[in-house]
Amino acid sequence: MAKILIVYQSKTSNTEKMAEAVEMGVKSEGVSVIRKKIENTKLEDLLEPQGILIGTPTYFGATTAEFKKLIDESIKYFPKLEGKVGAAFASSGDLGGGGETAILDILRAFLVHGMIVPGFTSGGHYGPVSVGAPNEERKKVCTEFGAKVARLVKRLYGG
Amino acid sequence: MAKILIVYQSKTSNTEKMAEAVEMGVKSEGVSVIRKKIENTKLEDLLEPQGILIGTPTYFGATTAEFKKLIDESIKYFPKLEGKVGAAFASSGDLGGGGETAILDILRAFLVHGMIVPGFTSGGHYGPVSVGAPNEERKKVCTEFGAKVARLVKRLYGG
Amino acid sequence: MAKILIVYQSKTSNTEKMAEAVEMGVKSEGVSVIRKKIENTKLEDLLEPQGILIGTPTYFGATTAEFKKLIDESIKYFPKLEGKVGAAFASSGDLGGGGETAILDILRAFLVHGMIVPGFTSGGHYGPVSVGAPNEERKKVCTEFGAKVARLVKRLYGG
Amino acid sequence: MAKILIVYQSKTSNTEKMAEAVEMGVKSEGVSVIRKKIENTKLEDLLEPQGILIGTPTYFGATTAEFKKLIDESIKYFPKLEGKVGAAFASSGDLGGGGETAILDILRAFLVHGMIVPGFTSGGHYGPVSVGAPNEERKKVCTEFGAKVARLVKRLYGG
Repeated sequence: MAKILIVYQSKTSNTEKMAEAVEMGVKSEGVSVIRKKIENTKLEDLLEPQGILIGTPTYFGATTAEFKKLIDESIKYFPKLEGKVGAAFASSGDLGGGGETAILDILRAFLVHGMIVPGFTSGGHYGPVSVGAPNEERKKVCTEFGAKVARLVKRLYGG
Repeated sequence: MAKILIVYQSKTSNTEKMAEAVEMGVKSEGVSVIRKKIENTKLEDLLEPQGILIGTPTYFGATTAEFKKLIDESIKYFPKLEGKVGAAFASSGDLGGGGETAILDILRAFLVHGMIVPGFTSGGHYGPVSVGAPNEERKKVCTEFGAKVARLVKRLYGG
Repeated sequence: MAKILIVYQSKTSNTEKMAEAVEMGVKSEGVSVIRKKIENTKLEDLLEPQGILIGTPTYFGATTAEFKKLIDESIKYFPKLEGKVGAAFASSGDLGGGGETAILDILRAFLVHGMIVPGFTSGGHYGPVSVGAPNEERKKVCTEFGAKVARLVKRLYGG
Repeated sequence: MAKILIVYQSKTSNTEKMAEAVEMGVKSEGVSVIRKKIENTKLEDLLEPQGILIGTPTYFGATTAEFKKLIDESIKYFPKLEGKVGAAFASSGDLGGGGETAILDILRAFLVHGMIVPGFTSGGHYGPVSVGAPNEERKKVCTEFGAKVARLVKRLYGG
């Protein structure tokens, strides 16, 4: 059965709320999901799931040093992540405050791993961005995002 | 006397309203300003001013084909734009809808020209973004952006 | 039967040589391919194929105004390109001369269309880059790139 | 007297050789320079110099977790770095292997700090990239890069 890992980092709970909404979307498609904070995530957690979703706060217009460390250490498994589906979402402190570029940081790392990155025709071009805490509209966007990724995982790996 | 050119493209008037607010900021610093729509802008307009500000709508997470055409044609003057100050602002249709990446498109072109690109400690990391029409807060951000760029132009070129 | 469109632009024939090598890779996987110069490409050519590959020269660290025009006009079919596979390759004039960012420009547009973008574990992180004319090693990278994209198209759409 | 800090990270000595060449360029303009490995760099080292140059290896198409940590911790001094000049250079393992995007990672962080980022009309659009060890041509590019940054620092801060 297909499985998706959601890894997120959250001090203020903004990204956590997004991650919860993303999880609902994945589950709505009948795909198994594991949701973990980055501090509870081990490198080997990346190996089993067919889809990896990363939710990052935005520090200096980018993902965090903690996520960059996880990404750099993932060289250990290169190229075993090839063919997995990857997508990302971000919270930021301000409009124009780097949420888009933080998501693209993650997507570029996924591409280097040879992973498969889907785009989105609504709710954020590269993945969902929330400025501060996600409101109901943003949570809905996150849920639709999770569902869409889950559908691609099922299409590629079976359900 | 230092001069700044503001070139913008606007179908819906959202970017135009931003451009007007940016112009106010430049003027508040006593720097001369020319504000033009892209359809009224000639390539040689880029030569005289010490600062070039571009206001772009966001099409497919990027600047527009019209601006890309202007940028590509500016090869004619390469490297005569070297040392000028450049900055950009963008309107987009949606949160996470590519405003940041549209601005970065313009900034990268400025860097290729050897221009000098300032960052901003508030109001949008790479330059102001508005989702839809700019409200009063966004207009204020645009005005502060124009003023900050004008101060750098004065510092480099005298006022 | 799955079909892939390769659209490229080439004044110096550098990008054309890359496109020819990419075509060989696609064909090696038994996938049908149409290779067209951008000046011979009509917007409706984007509709039928399950995969779209764009080969761009690098102008100002980005794709060209001609490709940006094609991308902007493709709004006409939005969101009909959703789910297609997209990838890109670029020639540039210099090492560090923007080939990577030109590729990412195209990939971002594909993501906005809701397309599916694969990464590559060798031969260029985001897609193949050639500085000047592609040598034999670069052509081989392009051929492997074409083959890999074709395999993903077959996996998603059947062969 | 103007001072420039060069911080670099280097396991293979490729980035170190680039940093040495950059240092020669800065010195050729009569600007004081401190060159440090990231492991010997303290956060407060960022405060005094008027220019900050970062030389990064490319890990997953980006700067390293070590540099991202330094960047994230630099929030402590926000916005005290505003107005300083910033530029970056990168070594990578492969053509198209992320050197450009690694440089842009650093430049975006500089922009968030409100720093001033110059572009370059030759030798790499966003800053010098070397694939593997820098040869004599690449070292020359690095030296010219260091000299150009030093000239801008002198122009802004006196020499």
